[in-house]
Amino acid sequence: MDVKYINPFLIATQKVFKTMFNIDISMTKPLLKQERTTSGDITGIMGLSGDKKGAVAVSFSKKGVFFIYNALMGDGCNELGPEVIDAIGELTNIISGQARKELERVGLNLKAAIPIVIKGDKLETSFITKLPIVSLPFSFPVGNGDKETMYVDFSFE
Amino acid sequence: MDVKYINPFLIATQKVFKTMFNIDISMTKPLLKQERTTSGDITGIMGLSGDKKGAVAVSFSKKGVFFIYNALMGDGCNELGPEVIDAIGELTNIISGQARKELERVGLNLKAAIPIVIKGDKLETSFITKLPIVSLPFSFPVGNGDKETMYVDFSFE
Repeated sequence: MDVKYINPFLIATQKVFKTMFNIDISMTKPLLKQERTTSGDITGIMGLSGDKKGAVAVSFSKKGVFFIYNALMGDGCNELGPEVIDAIGELTNIISGQARKELERVGLNLKAAIPIVIKGDKLETSFITKLPIVSLPFSFPVGNGDKETMYVDFSFE
Repeated sequence: MDVKYINPFLIATQKVFKTMFNIDISMTKPLLKQERTTSGDITGIMGLSGDKKGAVAVSFSKKGVFFIYNALMGDGCNELGPEVIDAIGELTNIISGQARKELERVGLNLKAAIPIVIKGDKLETSFITKLPIVSLPFSFPVGNGDKETMYVDFSFE
């Protein structure tokens, strides 16, 4: 995994959060993971193919996702209903679309699949690949001095 | 969604189960779903792109997946550990690879992404698309006269 692929996802995620939610999101230390599992309450997945095979997973805690959704919709949403699932699907679509644009600049052309969103208790998302997964943890304020973390994980073969 | 896409997934799934597990798997009535959610304990996801955008999700109950895994490995496996997750990832890869071969015969060329496997309690898998999802329920015997159902769900835009 070439580290030059990290920046496109970093830039894309920050741009999307600024544009959609007016939130300045900051990345903490990116991880190159050998184990391939990310936990969360809801995860948006986008398969990518073209010059390389890949996949992106965007994972949120419930608290993080409600904050994001309410920032967008001005709504007092507190359950993972169809509207929230749709919003996470769109967000996954938009982040990976923006990342694909940025990746073109480093010479990697990818096409998107249909996003899939999974919710559940004790959710664990595993990439099935022998290559390391890059995990980008993004931190954002959710009020009262609290912060939540979302993860943008990706891998390319 | 064109019904001509159903047969390639049907043929692919039956071939793979026969070849890998020596199991004759039978499809019950395929569903064209408006709601986009499938439940299960473990789901393998493969994004597809190329001539069309698409995705496939292969969903199992725990009981179904243990039976499949033990049929393959001759093992007394009864938890969703890393080996089972890998096996479901590979199975998703192989089913979608075989389906892509069959889809080429009806003029649809698709490339695969990296498979992702999700496990969790009360898992719900949603396709984020305005098009209907085709859900193929496959039934297979797990001994003592019991049957389990796996679902191969897909959609193309």
